[in-house]
Amino acid sequence: MTTDNKSQFRPVAVPDVQLAGFWGKWQDAVCDSTAEILLDRCEKAGMIQAIDVNQPSPGVVIPIDEKWTGSTQMFWDSDLGKSIETIAYSLYRKPNAELEARADAIIDMYEKLQQEDGYVNAWFQRVQPGKRWTNLRDHHELYCAGHLMEAAVAYFQATGKRKLLDIMCRYADHMITVFGHGEGQIPGYCGHQEVELALVKLARVTGEKKYLDLAKFFVDERGREPHFFTAEALRGGRDPKEYVHKTYEYSQAHQPVREQNKVVGHAVRAMYQYSGMADIATEYHDDSLTSALETLWDDLTIKQMYVTGGIGPAAINEGFTDYYDLPNDTAYAETCASVGLVFWASRMLGRGPNRRYADIMEQALYNGALTGLARDGKTFFYDNPLESTGKHHRWVWHRCPCCPPNIARLVASVGSYMYAVADNEIAVHLYGESRLKATIAGASVTLTQHTNYPWHGDIRVNVDPENSSQFAIALRIPEWAAEGASLHLNGSTIDLTAAVVDGYARIARTWQKGDVIELKLPLELRPQYASPKVRQDVGRVALARGPLIYCVEETDNGSDLNAFVVPKSLSSHRTKTVESLDDAIAVELDLTKEDASGWNGSLYHTRPAEQVPAKVTLIPYHLWDNREPGNMLVWLQSEK
Amino acid sequence: MTTDNKSQFRPVAVPDVQLAGFWGKWQDAVCDSTAEILLDRCEKAGMIQAIDVNQPSPGVVIPIDEKWTGSTQMFWDSDLGKSIETIAYSLYRKPNAELEARADAIIDMYEKLQQEDGYVNAWFQRVQPGKRWTNLRDHHELYCAGHLMEAAVAYFQATGKRKLLDIMCRYADHMITVFGHGEGQIPGYCGHQEVELALVKLARVTGEKKYLDLAKFFVDERGREPHFFTAEALRGGRDPKEYVHKTYEYSQAHQPVREQNKVVGHAVRAMYQYSGMADIATEYHDDSLTSALETLWDDLTIKQMYVTGGIGPAAINEGFTDYYDLPNDTAYAETCASVGLVFWASRMLGRGPNRRYADIMEQALYNGALTGLARDGKTFFYDNPLESTGKHHRWVWHRCPCCPPNIARLVASVGSYMYAVADNEIAVHLYGESRLKATIAGASVTLTQHTNYPWHGDIRVNVDPENSSQFAIALRIPEWAAEGASLHLNGSTIDLTAAVVDGYARIARTWQKGDVIELKLPLELRPQYASPKVRQDVGRVALARGPLIYCVEETDNGSDLNAFVVPKSLSSHRTKTVESLDDAIAVELDLTKEDASGWNGSLYHTRPAEQVPAKVTLIPYHLWDNREPGNMLVWLQSEK
Repeated sequence: MTTDNKSQFRPVAVPDVQLAGFWGKWQDAVCDSTAEILLDRCEKAGMIQAIDVNQPSPGVVIPIDEKWTGSTQMFWDSDLGKSIETIAYSLYRKPNAELEARADAIIDMYEKLQQEDGYVNAWFQRVQPGKRWTNLRDHHELYCAGHLMEAAVAYFQATGKRKLLDIMCRYADHMITVFGHGEGQIPGYCGHQEVELALVKLARVTGEKKYLDLAKFFVDERGREPHFFTAEALRGGRDPKEYVHKTYEYSQAHQPVREQNKVVGHAVRAMYQYSGMADIATEYHDDSLTSALETLWDDLTIKQMYVTGGIGPAAINEGFTDYYDLPNDTAYAETCASVGLVFWASRMLGRGPNRRYADIMEQALYNGALTGLARDGKTFFYDNPLESTGKHHRWVWHRCPCCPPNIARLVASVGSYMYAVADNEIAVHLYGESRLKATIAGASVTLTQHTNYPWHGDIRVNVDPENSSQFAIALRIPEWAAEGASLHLNGSTIDLTAAVVDGYARIARTWQKGDVIELKLPLELRPQYASPKVRQDVGRVALARGPLIYCVEETDNGSDLNAFVVPKSLSSHRTKTVESLDDAIAVELDLTKEDASGWNGSLYHTRPAEQVPAKVTLIPYHLWDNREPGNMLVWLQSEK
Repeated sequence: MTTDNKSQFRPVAVPDVQLAGFWGKWQDAVCDSTAEILLDRCEKAGMIQAIDVNQPSPGVVIPIDEKWTGSTQMFWDSDLGKSIETIAYSLYRKPNAELEARADAIIDMYEKLQQEDGYVNAWFQRVQPGKRWTNLRDHHELYCAGHLMEAAVAYFQATGKRKLLDIMCRYADHMITVFGHGEGQIPGYCGHQEVELALVKLARVTGEKKYLDLAKFFVDERGREPHFFTAEALRGGRDPKEYVHKTYEYSQAHQPVREQNKVVGHAVRAMYQYSGMADIATEYHDDSLTSALETLWDDLTIKQMYVTGGIGPAAINEGFTDYYDLPNDTAYAETCASVGLVFWASRMLGRGPNRRYADIMEQALYNGALTGLARDGKTFFYDNPLESTGKHHRWVWHRCPCCPPNIARLVASVGSYMYAVADNEIAVHLYGESRLKATIAGASVTLTQHTNYPWHGDIRVNVDPENSSQFAIALRIPEWAAEGASLHLNGSTIDLTAAVVDGYARIARTWQKGDVIELKLPLELRPQYASPKVRQDVGRVALARGPLIYCVEETDNGSDLNAFVVPKSLSSHRTKTVESLDDAIAVELDLTKEDASGWNGSLYHTRPAEQVPAKVTLIPYHLWDNREPGNMLVWLQSEK
């Protein structure tokens, strides 16, 4: 299967996939807790008052930061948008009249807030009226619109209610008049990318190409000279040199997007930009965008990505630094950035299945992103270090609460990342107990996965077309399972060497009710060594099992986690089920430990510490800090 | 030799020691460059105008930081004080009429600035008059006085000129009236310790016990309840809870000093406090202070000190964090803090020689402190990481320029740290080409060290009493040389096993002109392994030779310094002289290197990198960043 330049794989709608098993439990946590918590905490923060025209404006609740001349309050619309999106997905899984009524009430408020011309934004209508469209670089105006558009699409898909969709279409229609190169139009784009991918969603659900064209306009304009941000600043009487982030790399606006070949700046912005570019590449068959994205993909994943799929090591710019600079204890690796990487990866699959993207989508999903949510769905990580000395814990809320609804909406919609559908093909990107109902080549088909993945590697897929039907199913064989995977169709072995292209086994045939695919993926404990160029990981090893990165925690292993030394051979290990972590699979490993006794007299000796036999219990990284608080470590010392 | 509770070893005056060799070259750099540069840059910063009553006040040149309600401009007096102190020492070595005239002019200005009552402070007389003694906690008022006192003592000793000494005695006399528990007196002390040790110097040079008593008062009062800082804040209408550093641990004022058993807070403050405490312990035979200091010494050196003698890992408080938390690339390890550790260590020798203190004095001097000064004496490190990715370089000046004059005055006065004298004993704490003229038991004696230490370990000491004279000489046998050191007196071997107590070989006899001591210290390349509790150093080794810690630099070894793996045996190494580093001894070592080729396809592999034979050149850490800029690393990967 070479990539067909004309294939267009689009994610299935969230309600088309029903989940149980691993993801089912996580979705239950979102339905039962997170969805409501998000609304409660948004409300407590003042966000409802902010949009309710029947209440006085809350004014500036979160002070304006002089450095970037903005307040995180400016993007409250986005927090509400992502919360509504989460609620939408949760309603599909678990109807909840009370929650739906609260969401409807918010949507009603937006309806009342919306101006005649279609414009709608809580900050610029109620706190700083008159400043509309005056600082696209810093003030997240289109970003807020984008998140409300995503909410609108989700709420419509989940409930069938069109009100928010209509509001956002009116707003998008207004934007079409505002942005462009015509007389009196703004030839600009948002400092924080997001509206691009949202407009694509809006276009796909409405069938309106004009929204795609606007998204493409924003993509095409970004970074062009003469530079819009510079002109905008001068027009506003601001000195462009005073820009807090110095260069436009921060928002990936330093070059036209097709010329960008290095992943730089704010990590979430980068991921959202590349997601939008990938969507446009798919919709317009735009090879120049795809080519730039392929280069950027390698730049990110070969030089700048944590083994967890975390990205953006630095707090100072919430983003990227130097190649191979991946500090573990101070890793920023924002939850939103890994969520964004999942978004981007899934969209790189728009032009055809390729495990180069899907493997990393899975890695970022299970590790960098999912870690952001506590098992009970009630607390959240913003940054995701790979080593902790016991002071890093999930919090209840944040002044910039972008991550909670972001991981929640991803978890609640994860089914749409598992499957994608093209004209005559279904791609199975991720495995998990689930049921897909799709329409393929005009015919209805149900795909049912039975599996305890990611804990076990056996996956049985029942294929049930309504009527016998000719199409292809592409199943991902992860790179880590390439040796040892096996595939059967109705009991007959399929030769993977022949069937696998770009990491997917593609079975094209006439499918009939009752067809059964059996895939076995080996889940061996797998060492992960980093390139010697990653100075923070030299002499260390991380352990993985299937898509999951493992870690050691103090509660199982004591506090001196860095004293453990993993042997070269991992043969001496056992798996066990951990009841307190929802029957997750832990790993027990025999190894050695540096003996710190006898070091009392001085800090430095001329001989290294003795190594004594020991054992550790490893748990999946995404489950850390769900039991007793304490130290945590992903990269263990490795025997040389 | 058990510590004689009544011995009092006091450092010799700087002019009593003449240096050549290693330290002679460094002192030349200070005399030829740094001393003048300090004045030039102080002047450029506005510090001269600040004290010149014939010019208008400069006003607030460095804005007041709202967080701590102060400005680094508040301690300009200290910068001038340390600069004059440096000049004083430099004038002794190299007379310089122009420099002396500039110092005299500054002293004349201070004379004119001084008020009738003796008070003198540039900020509180010229920028914020009326606020005198209202915020001892934050505003460095006594700290400034202390540095001017140290300058006064040094300038008097070097030039015989009393003017600054008289000014500072008048100021100290004034303080005696201001501070105390009497009616209208202030029962307080400075947030930044310094005046305590300075008053001891003033007492020693003037013979005035009243200055000692004031120093003791400040030491005794610190941290007592009811808390002075709290009362002071309330009196000034400030909320004590708003203190930017939250707890008084920041300035070691959280407990009475004799109850303190953990080294906490701002590192320089801690070192200056312990120095003052040690001086008071020596002068008053105060065992309760000595006991607390011994506990604090172990706490610092066994749990919180870099192998370089750098201390205080964190920028946020310029100080201490958790035990065993010693990050290398982000090490703050302020130059001033290691200078302060040298101060403290030397004062711990006040009650008798003990290598427990002197070894670390030497370690901090040659590594943590000296690194702060470029070879040419013209640029300065503030913070001293043990790993650099090429962005850390010495700077020309700093908004808080405390380090340049601090390392300069230490280098220029290093002779006074080499020798200390008690009633009937001379202690030789440090080795280096030098000549001491001392008076011992009423008789003049000259001690001359001939040595190329620290590059070579052979030290020949000529002892030349004016007349035959009975006294002891104690020579330090560093712990790292304990195996392999040899000592001869006039050609006869001295049995070190018998002669060494507390790490010093003590020779008590009637000395005659022409007596010769020969000491040989083995300078083997020495691995240094950290306790496994230091998570940042596990699996790594630092290399030392004599008192010097070594490092690898990019200019010699390429950029992938973390890929080198040091073998367990260091037998395969050679030394060589580096001309471009003033004939320093470099070390060439055969080792292996992890091969980063073949890692292009992905960042993480299931197999570790191949190791290929390689060699590195190591240079002394204190000389790094004196050639081509680039990466640097102290802790190399170690074979397991």
